[in-house]
Amino acid sequence: MQAHEVWSRLIAVREQAPLIHNITNFVVMNNTANALLAIGASPAMIHSTDEVEDFVAVSKALVVNIGTLYSDQVAAYKLAAAQAKRLGVPWVFDPVGAGATPYRRVVAASLLRLQPSVIRGNGSEILTLAQQSGAGRGVDSLHGSEAALEGAHRLAREGSAVVAITGAVDYVTDGERVTELHNGHPLMARVTGLGCSATAVIGAFLAVEPDAFAATVAALAVFSVAGEVAAGWAAGPGSLQVALLDALYTLDEATLADRLKVKARSEPLLKC
Amino acid sequence: MQAHEVWSRLIAVREQAPLIHNITNFVVMNNTANALLAIGASPAMIHSTDEVEDFVAVSKALVVNIGTLYSDQVAAYKLAAAQAKRLGVPWVFDPVGAGATPYRRVVAASLLRLQPSVIRGNGSEILTLAQQSGAGRGVDSLHGSEAALEGAHRLAREGSAVVAITGAVDYVTDGERVTELHNGHPLMARVTGLGCSATAVIGAFLAVEPDAFAATVAALAVFSVAGEVAAGWAAGPGSLQVALLDALYTLDEATLADRLKVKARSEPLLKC
Amino acid sequence: MQAHEVWSRLIAVREQAPLIHNITNFVVMNNTANALLAIGASPAMIHSTDEVEDFVAVSKALVVNIGTLYSDQVAAYKLAAAQAKRLGVPWVFDPVGAGATPYRRVVAASLLRLQPSVIRGNGSEILTLAQQSGAGRGVDSLHGSEAALEGAHRLAREGSAVVAITGAVDYVTDGERVTELHNGHPLMARVTGLGCSATAVIGAFLAVEPDAFAATVAALAVFSVAGEVAAGWAAGPGSLQVALLDALYTLDEATLADRLKVKARSEPLLKC
Repeated sequence: MQAHEVWSRLIAVREQAPLIHNITNFVVMNNTANALLAIGASPAMIHSTDEVEDFVAVSKALVVNIGTLYSDQVAAYKLAAAQAKRLGVPWVFDPVGAGATPYRRVVAASLLRLQPSVIRGNGSEILTLAQQSGAGRGVDSLHGSEAALEGAHRLAREGSAVVAITGAVDYVTDGERVTELHNGHPLMARVTGLGCSATAVIGAFLAVEPDAFAATVAALAVFSVAGEVAAGWAAGPGSLQVALLDALYTLDEATLADRLKVKARSEPLLKC
Repeated sequence: MQAHEVWSRLIAVREQAPLIHNITNFVVMNNTANALLAIGASPAMIHSTDEVEDFVAVSKALVVNIGTLYSDQVAAYKLAAAQAKRLGVPWVFDPVGAGATPYRRVVAASLLRLQPSVIRGNGSEILTLAQQSGAGRGVDSLHGSEAALEGAHRLAREGSAVVAITGAVDYVTDGERVTELHNGHPLMARVTGLGCSATAVIGAFLAVEPDAFAATVAALAVFSVAGEVAAGWAAGPGSLQVALLDALYTLDEATLADRLKVKARSEPLLKC
Repeated sequence: MQAHEVWSRLIAVREQAPLIHNITNFVVMNNTANALLAIGASPAMIHSTDEVEDFVAVSKALVVNIGTLYSDQVAAYKLAAAQAKRLGVPWVFDPVGAGATPYRRVVAASLLRLQPSVIRGNGSEILTLAQQSGAGRGVDSLHGSEAALEGAHRLAREGSAVVAITGAVDYVTDGERVTELHNGHPLMARVTGLGCSATAVIGAFLAVEPDAFAATVAALAVFSVAGEVAAGWAAGPGSLQVALLDALYTLDEATLADRLKVKARSEPLLKC
């Protein structure tokens, strides 16, 4: 993907200001809403089972993040995701800490069955999902991001979803194609919930770009380039969190083109 | 209202440090508490049905904000608001997204019946409430902020409340008088929950000023002048959110007097 | 405690990156997670009764903060604290607003019975707990921080816990020893939830230092020196909140040694 292709999708978000329905965790609600506002989208945080189905119906995309899950919230995730599927509203799944407890694994697996358009997690979260869904068979013997990438690939194929692994390098796959992004900054790992913000930004791009693979690559490109710019302004993780919102808001095409390091991965990922 | 009249109320907040009971949404809790601290008030976020009535009894004002409502929280809103009414504690209602879903409309209407002292929302939220309460009859044919203003006027009369519409221009009415404020900055719309902070600041001013109309005008004056000052310091929405707290904390009388643009609206609003 | 003893514990946190399980309030979740990340720990916010016991079992310390308590959350506090006790995981209790309502007093008392390793609060919270537990007998006639300190002392003895009172001066006692810290800055009181962050930082130090008294003193030393540094960078409470995270992240041994004002309190606290 070229910088101008990323840029045109960001412009579409800024122009259309799509309404993004978030059912996200309590740690990141403020920053997620602010990240969406900073790129020009219109965020709403709505999680009651009494209204999520109605709200999905008027939204352009749904973001489900299980970070601080509990039973009532889980019920809301499922109602909202099922409604999104029914109405053709794209939805993104962020399986925060998917492998941390048995309960979390059960919830993550049940959400996978509701067929997210895009799944974004770190390597171990994606690997957990791949193993949960049965897509992980044979992956256990691999290690690190290569293992996660193979898991992502299988998960994408089985679920007909786009899967993104974010970390020092970001990977996006739809089960056929794989794109790598080499932007971002190590200090971003010292700020809570930037992955959650990235997931929400993917939601905004899905709202304006029907090709989920292209939307995901473009969203992560914008987010990680802005993170890189912000790290240059920051004195530590506190000021980075603030600067990232400023950088998302002020990002221009020249900066994006200058910094973007994205490439299709040429060698085949799976031989089987 | 003159700058010195706004200033004297801010001084009263700083000197009395009134305890403000907030039942607010999860997106803005941190920033709302910090905005109240920055102006010199003493915030508490207390939302369990097991204790809201006890806590209203020791508070100087109550703020109810339905942003991330769900059934248990709604029960807490009602218990707290009814207690406030019973004990003569002023209470402010922020009907976030009042028109977004049927559930939200029902909740907003039920809270209106508990007679808030002040209602603050954006134009469409106020218009929704006006229509819900029956006060909106005949308003449907109008458009934009004029429609919302007429709705606010009727809502204020029917509910014996002060109603504030905030936006590019802020309007405050008690059903008789209308005051306009022309402060603030467009970048404020790119930060989540600044309206919620404004509502909480109204709560703090209500705690020191029995005239709810004067308290609301003074609170919005302080908040929007501070927003304007902060926008001058900010490089984007992230730094604006931070700078606003600094500006509320450091605001002095000369800056307020220099920037304040407030006026009574002279022409009659309603002919009927 | 000498600066190098504080420093060696901070280094241990940075090197071991201990997983800290937080069940904390909604106001401070973001800042608490960020404070833990800034000092090098690995935070998780997990509060569902369906998973807290499983998660305590993989954590190095547990932090329980009752700021925005409600019945489901209270059930989670108890399950988690009981599990921590069972497994020998150290746990810290932050009794936010313990005396504010009857419900809060009941909850605080029930958590005390689960024997926290460390309790951190302001003077009035600690005094409330001391009175609740019966440890407050005879304390009522005293006033201010001396009264709270005597309460802390008795509470520590009765509960075999370390008790920290934070304020203009911080005090830490285990019922025998008392250490005073004279760092920090008055502006810190104008930022919501810094006490909650301090409690979480104590959790991180407990995870690497089995002596709970030493861990608590070291944690408060790091936190209050960083607060002092941050106050020097800040223009108000908004920028202080941000700068504190930068200061925790960038703190070096020379700055710590230069600023630290800690001393054992020599005179006996209780004659009885």
